[in-house]
This record gives sequence, structure tokens and C-alpha cells, in this order.
Amino acid sequence: MANALLIACVVSVLLHAVGGATVRRFKWEVGYIYASPDCEEKLVMAINGQFPGPTIRAKAGDTIHLQLKNTLHTEGVVIHWHGIRQHGTPWADGTASISQCAINPEESFLYRFKVDKAGTYFYHGHYGMQRAAGLYGSLIVDVSDGEEEPFQYDGEFNLLLSDWYHTSIYDQMVGLSSRPMKWIGEPQSLLINGRGQTNCSLAASLVPGSSACELTSKDCEPVVLKVLPNKTYRLRIASATSLASLNLAIGNHSMTVVEADGNYVEPFTVDDMDIYSGESYSVLVTTNQKTSSNYWISVGVRGRKPNTQSALAIINYPPNAPSKLPESSPPATPLWNDYARSKSFTYRILARQGAPKPPPNADKRIALLNTQNKMDGYTKWAINNVSLALPATPYLGSMRYHLKNAFDTKIPPESFPSDYDVMRPAKNQNTTQSTNAYVFQFNSTIDVILQNANAIAENVSEIHPWHLHGHDFWVLGYGDGRFQEKDVSTFNLKNPPLRNTVVIFPYGWTALRFIADNPGVWAFHCHIEPHLHMGMGVVFAEGVENVRNVPTEAITCGMTGKMLINNHLP
Amino acid sequence: MANALLIACVVSVLLHAVGGATVRRFKWEVGYIYASPDCEEKLVMAINGQFPGPTIRAKAGDTIHLQLKNTLHTEGVVIHWHGIRQHGTPWADGTASISQCAINPEESFLYRFKVDKAGTYFYHGHYGMQRAAGLYGSLIVDVSDGEEEPFQYDGEFNLLLSDWYHTSIYDQMVGLSSRPMKWIGEPQSLLINGRGQTNCSLAASLVPGSSACELTSKDCEPVVLKVLPNKTYRLRIASATSLASLNLAIGNHSMTVVEADGNYVEPFTVDDMDIYSGESYSVLVTTNQKTSSNYWISVGVRGRKPNTQSALAIINYPPNAPSKLPESSPPATPLWNDYARSKSFTYRILARQGAPKPPPNADKRIALLNTQNKMDGYTKWAINNVSLALPATPYLGSMRYHLKNAFDTKIPPESFPSDYDVMRPAKNQNTTQSTNAYVFQFNSTIDVILQNANAIAENVSEIHPWHLHGHDFWVLGYGDGRFQEKDVSTFNLKNPPLRNTVVIFPYGWTALRFIADNPGVWAFHCHIEPHLHMGMGVVFAEGVENVRNVPTEAITCGMTGKMLINNHLP
Repeated sequence: MANALLIACVVSVLLHAVGGATVRRFKWEVGYIYASPDCEEKLVMAINGQFPGPTIRAKAGDTIHLQLKNTLHTEGVVIHWHGIRQHGTPWADGTASISQCAINPEESFLYRFKVDKAGTYFYHGHYGMQRAAGLYGSLIVDVSDGEEEPFQYDGEFNLLLSDWYHTSIYDQMVGLSSRPMKWIGEPQSLLINGRGQTNCSLAASLVPGSSACELTSKDCEPVVLKVLPNKTYRLRIASATSLASLNLAIGNHSMTVVEADGNYVEPFTVDDMDIYSGESYSVLVTTNQKTSSNYWISVGVRGRKPNTQSALAIINYPPNAPSKLPESSPPATPLWNDYARSKSFTYRILARQGAPKPPPNADKRIALLNTQNKMDGYTKWAINNVSLALPATPYLGSMRYHLKNAFDTKIPPESFPSDYDVMRPAKNQNTTQSTNAYVFQFNSTIDVILQNANAIAENVSEIHPWHLHGHDFWVLGYGDGRFQEKDVSTFNLKNPPLRNTVVIFPYGWTALRFIADNPGVWAFHCHIEPHLHMGMGVVFAEGVENVRNVPTEAITCGMTGKMLINNHLP
Repeated sequence: MANALLIACVVSVLLHAVGGATVRRFKWEVGYIYASPDCEEKLVMAINGQFPGPTIRAKAGDTIHLQLKNTLHTEGVVIHWHGIRQHGTPWADGTASISQCAINPEESFLYRFKVDKAGTYFYHGHYGMQRAAGLYGSLIVDVSDGEEEPFQYDGEFNLLLSDWYHTSIYDQMVGLSSRPMKWIGEPQSLLINGRGQTNCSLAASLVPGSSACELTSKDCEPVVLKVLPNKTYRLRIASATSLASLNLAIGNHSMTVVEADGNYVEPFTVDDMDIYSGESYSVLVTTNQKTSSNYWISVGVRGRKPNTQSALAIINYPPNAPSKLPESSPPATPLWNDYARSKSFTYRILARQGAPKPPPNADKRIALLNTQNKMDGYTKWAINNVSLALPATPYLGSMRYHLKNAFDTKIPPESFPSDYDVMRPAKNQNTTQSTNAYVFQFNSTIDVILQNANAIAENVSEIHPWHLHGHDFWVLGYGDGRFQEKDVSTFNLKNPPLRNTVVIFPYGWTALRFIADNPGVWAFHCHIEPHLHMGMGVVFAEGVENVRNVPTEAITCGMTGKMLINNHLP
């Protein structure tokens, strides 16, 4: 009976058209299940018993009404709709401590928001490190009726990429917050649609003398993409990894990139592509290879010395059996630290003709220096020497209702010392923690220079994919070394791509521009889960006084909870 | 600096005398630490960085003001003050879903309650299975100034006993709630004051050919009780185990039992004693043995086929070094299923002369049949065929404010079918779940017959220690088989012991009497953590209309939270 219920829940996408706009209704329950994503049984945070969670499929302009029930035993939960801008519904952004109170066990929360732009998105937990526990799934928005994508394809597949650890997120969180810090290490496996292998791998089984992979569970069988020859397929690819930067390649097939983060890009063709955590892409693949073989899709690690086997999926041409191993070995991932190659790929991403252009000038520019620091023996990441601490009362409520002492109201630093040497470890590695937030004038245009630097250890500078909530931004440019005023002249104002996630390369900078036109409070942070946990993020706010209709349920905690009940005791 | 802060917290027992009554103030933070209770490093739920949590020491009549801050990352928390009756402060009983809303991460809650009776108590988490994660500590109440204990001693030691698992409580909770149920198994170790050994043990090192114990951490060094010869010591012993029933013995020394659950008992002398989860005792031990040796204290498993090594502590006579191993082997635990011996010990516990006597008659009697059941493929424990489900809104608030639909208002069954054969598995093993509660007339006298039965498997009936919140009860009698009306004539009304926890033996019954004189809502449940998680409990309520001054913080969740803010949106 519970099974039947569960199935009923999963398929309960109720459509409801109101005045032309379609409301898509979902009833979800978050809870742990036992699953074996990489053939080893672990606790996995699931939705309606599914891992990854159900795919949401909607059309541009639809409204989602999603009732989320928390069936975890003692933990709160929220879900962030990554890439959805939440115009008019900032309280539905699903970020604990920022847009809403975590949903308590056995309680429900109704997420209501509009998906206004076709594209490839995903959703994930945004409380503690719950994303890394498996709380994620795909959110795909098709063009609205009567509209057409600016490219053609015959079919599509969805590949949600992630990484997977065998230690619990509780262990990971406590370790990262310990003194000395206990680093989580490299993931035990990479997953494609929640499936991967560890210790052994399909790839390894092709190498003479290596151990074949024992598939102990259906959960870890490789994903098979059944194609027909001479067709063009759209592959939707998104990365919800906790740590890993990824590279994806398909044996014998090239890929034409056409979409990034829900925005069309000028098509370009590659043999392999990088995907950083928080990014999504669409690529077109034409099945023009000989049909006597299947082909590997291979996903490997970039940017960190890898200690994790590649994840594999199979492109299955008829009449081959899906289980028939491809003739060629899986494509090898490029050298992990071949940053020139990564930059080359990233720099090729440009807006498709006709895409919205950025305002020619910014009203304000802030520079955010990314550093790894020590704080009283703890290891932190800090932005302009402030490591983000999240307040007990979510900002959206406390700012909207002008509560005092809910967070640190000191204006955070908008730049960093001009003599800071980004190529070397900081002279003074001490940092401080704060809950302070950047408050922008409503509708102003903001430039952000993300500046990478050397970490604590000599000769180490890591890749950080930064993700902005509530907005897309234009990526105006990248550079190596310290950003300088003269770099402004190199900004691409002609066809900068619109994105919600952008990477900073080691020792480099990335410039982006956005319009602070979305009343609310928005996280802007490194999408690497342990880095955010260690404070690598900032909070942006704009036009909060214009926020209307915040549901009570979103703010019944902390000081806003107290405010709501003040003087109203029965 | 954080260290200094921590120490400041730990010692911050601020005394404050108001009109003769002393207020003892504490500031606690609950959070995970890494510790090695049995030499293997694991996450442990700690208070102010300590495991077990700090010992509270107060005098009868004192008031405790304890501010508890939750520093867990995503989980709520509460603490139950086990054995403290909470007269006038039912909201401070620390049971999630019953007496209060769980305290959210980064939030604090002020527990205020009076410790009105000297005795040996403890405290522990009462949300999910957080007690099993290590959230417990001792609470010791001395007689008030000018009063004297009815026995003499020269010094005292405190032994808080527990068991310990290497799998996380998340794993345990999900496993128990899975279909089919995944049983947690026997604990990996037993702990004395948070210290034990696994795989190897100090005891094993004395047996030729066995492996010596490798003490990998100071955390798992055995507790040493430094004594002087020819003195009498009070040993305070309490059990916070998740599963294990225990037996404690001291090499060469006998023990005189003088207190049970904060009530004086008629002294009796034993060589070893049973302690069930939720119980506490004081025993007097005289150090009258030869001083050339140290002596073992040994704690082993009772009532379940043991798969866990004994825990050991050392009684250290001068001038021996504390590390000098005792000459004799540790006392052996009696045969696990020698129930006759267990009954013999338990039946000897009687009230000390002059203790409060029970009312001669009860106003109402209920019989509670304990069965193991199936529910739609899940394994449950049920009481009169109802398995306890806890509501999202704590009962205390929803009952006090007469909220509709907060829980099932159907009156739960007050007896079970007269033809139920307690000696065999149930003919129909199906059960149902409910949030319903027993509501007693205020100030009425209630008799409860706890009736044990066969579990699902043939020839299995387990020990269950039942703990009542908010009250002590008189234990009127025990018997084997099914309780019968004629057994009433055997009730001990002369000197029944007052307790807050009592055991039912396999296939047996236990009769108890209490006065429903404490306005509030009170859990009455099997103190075995996985059994309670599987529904083995009931909820008692009385005089809720008389409850006053419930702090808002205790009810700002669920439907009471909504009630508080209703029509009061800013």
C-alpha cells in the first residue's frame, strides 16, 4: 500500500491551467533510504523513495506548486531550485538561513514559483551539506507552447552528474568544522544519474589484469542511452557534485554546446567538455558512428589530483545489446591540471546572437578576494577576509521586517588591500567570521570581480565555481593573476554569456555583471559543498522592502518567529 | 580562545540564592565531537565538548536554569531530565513532540525546573535516537542543607553506564524504520562514564592467549576509583543504555543497595546487581579487602544473548598504582537468561521504612499489552495493538490550547482481549499506528498492568524497562504469565518501592500505581531506544487545563506555532 502511495506521489504531477498559465503540482517527501549508488549500500537522502529525486518537467511560464514534506527523523530540510530566479517569490529559493526557515520533521512547506525561462536546471538541498547526502534531481523547462528552441534535435537524454562519499554528511560536516580540520578527501565515486562504481569499474574491466566490476545492486548499473543511428540528440548535463570538477567525453562522438545554465550560447563543437559543480549544459550529439558498436560516455575529475574512478554510461546503437561493451576504451579525462585546456573550453562559451546584452556600465563594482584562512585553529574560506557564518534567523525575514541583531549589519568589505599578493600564501592567514550582507541599491547594475589567490599551502590555488541565486549574470571576462583596472578595457560587452554559475581558475579572476532587480536576499557562493560549509560565500540583498506575501511558514523560526507571536500569546 | 570559552562554559555553574531557594545556572551547547569511547573514533554528541555531558550537581529544593544552545548543523535537539518530576514545569520535561518543540540549530531554550528530591538521576536526549549518539550525563541531587541521608558514607563515586554502537544513529533510525526492518544488533561496547573497549578488552588481556587491549586514545582508558581502605563509599549507578540490560559486580566486594530512581529502599546486600536502561541506584561499598591488590568493577549484558564484551573499571587501593591489574579476574556476568536470578534481585527492592505509601485503592486500572507486530511489512512494537506515532505538534501545547487535528483524539484501548495468549506469537500480528493519548482525571489514582507477551518469533519474550515521565510510581507486584484478577490480592501495599522505571520480565506482568497529580503530558515508554523508535510507548495526560506559563519557545512549531501567529501577521 505504501508502495502504491509512493508511486501515486511520484506520478502526481497534476496539471491545472488558470487563465492560460499552467500550474504543475507535486507532492514530495524527503527521507532517507538505503541505496547502493556505487554498489555499496549507504544512507541516501531521497525524494518519494527515489534517488536522484524525481525529474521536474515543465514549460516556460508554468508555475510550480510543490508541497515538500520532511520525513527525516530529527533534521530540517529545504530545497533550492538552482537556476530559477524566483522573481516575486524570493522566499521560495530554498536556502536555509537566507530565504526561509528549514522545514521541521513531519512538517510541510509549499514551494510556489514560476519557471520563466526554458533550460536545463536542477534542484538540491541547501541546508548543511544535505546535497552531498543525495538530495538532488533535475528540473527541465521546455519552451512554451508555440515557441521553438533555436536548434533542432530528434530526441534528448538527461545526465545529472554528481560525486559520492562513503562517509556520512554528519561526519563530513563535523570534520570540516573541527580543529584541526578533517578534510573530506576525494569522493569515492562519480555518479551519472545516481549510478557509479567504486574500487572496480567498467573501465577497469577493459584493462587486462584489472578486476572486473561486480555489480552488487541494480542501483549501480550503468546508465544506457538507447539511440537510433543518424539522429541528433540533445544531452542535458548538469553537475550537482559536492567537490569534483568534471570532464565529460563520448567515445567517437563530438558534442556541440548550445545551452549553458538555461541560456543559449553560440554553438561550438568539442570532443570533451568541462562541467563545474552548479553548471548545466545542453550539447547536441549526432549518432553518426558505425552501428556495430556501442560507445562510452566517460566522466572524470578535473582540477584536483584525481583519486576517483571515472563514471561510465553507454550509448547503445541498435542492434547491439545494451550490455555489449564498446569496442574502444572509454575516453580518457584530460590531465587534471591542464588548466589551459579548461580555460580554452570555458572561454569559448559566448552568448548566442540575439541574447540580452549587459548594460554598458555598472553602477558599482565590488571585488571579492577568495582566500583560505585560519580562524583560531579552524580552517576557513573567506571573502575579503570575512568567512560567512549563517544566522539562526533567515535574512529575508529579518531584513524585510527590520529586526535588530538578527545578523551583523556592518557593511562587508567591497575590495581587498591593493598590496595583497594573490600568488603567495597570505602573510596573515587569520580571518574572522560574520553574518554581514552586501545590500545593493534596487535596480542598480553591479560588477563583481572574483579574485582567486593562493591557498594556505604554497603553490596551491584551487578552482571555485561561484553560483548566484536569484539572477543570471553576464560573464564579462577572465584573466590570470591579479585583476587590474586596465583589465576593464578587455571586458566583453558584445556577447558575454548569461549564466548563474561561473568558475575562477587558479590564481585568476573572473568578472561578472548583473542587475540587482530581484527583490530578495540571495546567496552568492562557491558551489563546492565543503567550501561553502567552511564559509566561502557572501549574501547579496536588494529591494527587500518591495518583497510581498512572504508565507508565514517561511519565517516561523528564530527572531522572525518571535516577532510574529509577540504580544499575541493566548 | 574557544578552549577558554569552553572551559568557562563548563564551570559556569552560577549560584544565585533567591529567598532561600538556590538557582543554579548552566550554559550548555550541544554539538558533535570526535571521540573514541571504545578506542575507535566516531562522532559523539557532546555537551560543551564533553562526553558524557557535564554532571549537574544540586541540592534538593534548588532550581535549575539551564540554557541549552543547539550547535548541531541541521538537527533539532531536546534534553529530558530523567527522574525529575517537573511539577509546575511540564514544558521543561524535554521530550520532543510531547512537552516541547525541538530546539532548532543555533537556537537556545531555557530549561527551568526544580529538583525537589535528593537522589541519583541523569539526563539524556529525547528526540529521535539522540541518546544513543551519546547525549547523556548525570544529574545528582544532594539532600538539602540541614537534611541527612538515611545512611552513612565516607565518599562517593558516580558511574553512568551506557552502550555504544559504531553505526550512526541515522543509520540505526532508518534501518529500524525500513521494510524489512534492519535490526541494530548488539552494541559494539559497554561504557562506564563514556569509556569502554571493543574487540579486545582489559579482561581479555588477563586470559592467556587472548589479545591485549590497545588503548588508542585517552578517551577509552578505564575509569579508576581511588579509594582508601576501610571506608564506605556510595556508588551512584545509572543506565542510559540504548539496548542493553546490565549487571554490575565488584571483585571481592559486596554492595548494599540503598536507593533506586531517587527513592530510598530498604537496604539489602548483593554480590552483583542488575541495572536496566532508565534505572538508577545507589549502593554502599566498604573497602574491607586486602590492600595489596586493585579490584575490578565489571559490567556485562543481561537478558539478551550477549555479543558485547564487559566494560571494566578499577577500584584502586593505595599504595597500588592505578594501572596495576587486579589479581583476580573480573567478576563474570551471570548467565544472560538466568531470569530467576534477575527476578530475585528485582523483587528484593522495597521501600525504606517511612517512605510514602500508595493510596489503598485505584480509581482506574488500565492494562497495557506489549507486543511486537507487523504493519504493512514494517516491524513495530505496539501497546494494546497501537504503535505510538509522535505528532508534529507537541501534545502539551495542542492539548492545552484545544487544537483540533493535532493528534488522534480516539481514546486508546485500556485493556486487551481476554483470550489473548501471551505465551504464543499473536495469531494476527498486524498493528496500527496512532498518536492517541490516555487522558486521566486529575488527581485520580491509576493502576497500570504492564503485560509482556511472546514477540513475533516463537519462544521469544524480551525484557522491557518502562519509564514514566513526570511521576514516580509504586511497584505493586510482578508475576509470570498473564495477569489475572486474583493477582490483585498479591499486590504489595505495605512497602512497594517508588520508582520511575520498572521492568517487565519475559512472559510476565508488572503492576504499578501512580497518582495523576502532575498537570501535563507525559511519556510512558520502553526505555530501550530502538523499541521506542518502533512505537513502544504511550502518552499519558492529566490536568492539562491547569498548566500555566508555557514559554512560547516551547510551542513555536507545528499547529501551536500557527496558532500563536494566527491573525497577527505584520
